[in-house]
Amino acid sequence: MLKKYLLSPGPTAVPENVLLRMAQPMIHHRTPQFSAIFAETKGMLETLFQTKNDVLTLASSGTGAMEAAILNLYSEGDTIITVNGGKFGERWGKIGREYGLNVVELTVDWGQAIPVASVEAALKANPEAKGVLLQASDTSTTTEHPVREIAQLTAQYDDCTIVVDAITALGVIDMPMDDWGLDVVISGSQKALMLPPGLAVISLSDKAWDQVSRSTTKKFYFDLSTEQKNQKSGKDTTAWTPAVSLIIGLNEVLTMMLDEGLEAMFARHTLLAEATRAGVQALGMKLISSAPATSATGAYVPEGVDGAAFVKYLRDDMGVTFAGGQDDLKGKILRIAHLGYYDVFDIVTAMSAIEIALNRFGHNFSMGAGVAAAQQVLVNRFPAQS
Amino acid sequence: MLKKYLLSPGPTAVPENVLLRMAQPMIHHRTPQFSAIFAETKGMLETLFQTKNDVLTLASSGTGAMEAAILNLYSEGDTIITVNGGKFGERWGKIGREYGLNVVELTVDWGQAIPVASVEAALKANPEAKGVLLQASDTSTTTEHPVREIAQLTAQYDDCTIVVDAITALGVIDMPMDDWGLDVVISGSQKALMLPPGLAVISLSDKAWDQVSRSTTKKFYFDLSTEQKNQKSGKDTTAWTPAVSLIIGLNEVLTMMLDEGLEAMFARHTLLAEATRAGVQALGMKLISSAPATSATGAYVPEGVDGAAFVKYLRDDMGVTFAGGQDDLKGKILRIAHLGYYDVFDIVTAMSAIEIALNRFGHNFSMGAGVAAAQQVLVNRFPAQS
Repeated sequence: MLKKYLLSPGPTAVPENVLLRMAQPMIHHRTPQFSAIFAETKGMLETLFQTKNDVLTLASSGTGAMEAAILNLYSEGDTIITVNGGKFGERWGKIGREYGLNVVELTVDWGQAIPVASVEAALKANPEAKGVLLQASDTSTTTEHPVREIAQLTAQYDDCTIVVDAITALGVIDMPMDDWGLDVVISGSQKALMLPPGLAVISLSDKAWDQVSRSTTKKFYFDLSTEQKNQKSGKDTTAWTPAVSLIIGLNEVLTMMLDEGLEAMFARHTLLAEATRAGVQALGMKLISSAPATSATGAYVPEGVDGAAFVKYLRDDMGVTFAGGQDDLKGKILRIAHLGYYDVFDIVTAMSAIEIALNRFGHNFSMGAGVAAAQQVLVNRFPAQS
Repeated sequence: MLKKYLLSPGPTAVPENVLLRMAQPMIHHRTPQFSAIFAETKGMLETLFQTKNDVLTLASSGTGAMEAAILNLYSEGDTIITVNGGKFGERWGKIGREYGLNVVELTVDWGQAIPVASVEAALKANPEAKGVLLQASDTSTTTEHPVREIAQLTAQYDDCTIVVDAITALGVIDMPMDDWGLDVVISGSQKALMLPPGLAVISLSDKAWDQVSRSTTKKFYFDLSTEQKNQKSGKDTTAWTPAVSLIIGLNEVLTMMLDEGLEAMFARHTLLAEATRAGVQALGMKLISSAPATSATGAYVPEGVDGAAFVKYLRDDMGVTFAGGQDDLKGKILRIAHLGYYDVFDIVTAMSAIEIALNRFGHNFSMGAGVAAAQQVLVNRFPAQS
């Protein structure tokens, strides 16, 4: 017997009531029944995005929505500024170059947030830039970028949009699309939305739609104008066959999220992140990031411990799945998720699993120190009785 | 959002694969399909009981099987010796008196195991006694009784059977029915069998069946001879309508249990019990029992903490369900389950929840001490890598 714990930053755990709702008999997608669910879901998505814009749903992974943003907003030869501080930031550049855009790539060391001044300088040096594309939170380095400040810069340029990959930020941190003036916000189902992978969501501001109207890039499946015509209120369906059970699941998770309330949900994520950071640091594990994310915590495994073997042991021998590192961080780090359907005892389990594995790897440390440090923070999740 | 953790000694957590198997479309119980499942399940039950006797299945709670044992083995005016060291031991006496038996009740302080010498003396004083009835593990006091030694005593009396309520012992501790010469062994579905409540299992030795043949007590639903005729190999059905989905679930859990292996399963329970005792004691909580059970651990809440409010707070504010105390122990204790579908991180969660609740109740203790002490034991569940 080996009980399984999924503590990787996507896919994340799916709540039981959502699994059961998605397991109900299939319905057809060109029916009033489906449209009613779709319309209600779209309304809740708008609340979650904190926007008056439409939020469109795509049957794709988050990368599909990233590509959709580039295909729909820009044209061959356009200049875009991308922030590359990790695997996902790098992806903006790859997609942009594939479609013949002039990509000005701002690289930043993994684990560092992009300095606002770098973006400011790039915009000044490239006043023709049509967009600034970045991650709100790059999961590969568990780092958050200063989205709000960068949006204030792009707002000063009439034909430059800010495109935010919020795949591990939506529903995790307070990032009001309209208030902050974000032009494109993207997310995926398998993160804070607590669903299986396969669904992406994307919303565009008027400024973004204006760019869409001028884009000459060829596209078909990811044509957001076609989706907008089909998904708008009153029509309430998708252009192509939707991922029906995922949209039904989305209806269920959004109901849960809005029942919890945005403020409470962000506070929970902040608390779990703070506890996790306290826990790993109490075990002598250094954080990867100087601007640590609220979605997941990355930390170096202690000296003398083989990180790849450590992650494998936790997963295969102990049943606890974390993420390891990618590229340069491969074999050196551990990434612990705390976005979505996670709460106090998931963080305790994460800390305990790390402690037990460290013990089994012969590492010398004070048993219980990580859990204790995490608990000192986690107690604040519950009301004091005295 | 409040995630729920069921850590009470029955009902216990039901594994996901078992829930899914039980959620499959209903089948009819007078069919070759059901009989095939029933026969396979019965064979696996015999392995679990470690017996060559038939194991019968009843659609009832464990108390139904306790009553069935008395109804089928004994007659009005018969003398039985019962061990009353807790709520469940007391129940033997209540049932016996209801049916006009002469009940010799051996009371023992809650938390104490019955001394073998007391049973020996009672048998000598009542040589006409037809049975000794006891719990292998009384969950109300989390205490184990010396079943094996008492069975050696009853074996010396030609017409005296030992009847063992193994409701929280079967699948938890090694208690081979045939090797130990146990005459009746009873269990229920919602404990180590990891199922919802509603199903009881009972097995009788030849010595017990001989008593059955002479019993004049009136019975109908719980007539084990009728069940035996129907459930025996080749017939493979029940006398009355069986709890179909629970029997299908039983097939699934027994497959899991035998896959794990009896020895590994007993070792896991022993380790979890040891870790739990180490954890609560490190928090300064005194054990209730001087012969602590492998199925669940009972401990006094610290001085100054209201036990009833503590258990309620854990359940309602923190989502973690433990059991409190019954009768004299009401408001004074906490009972933590570790039988069935529980493993390392369930014990960690239990300890962490107690620590967080103690903190919230203003109790002064060393944060992390309980988890650390439990972990020192729990590490042995996983192979050392260095």
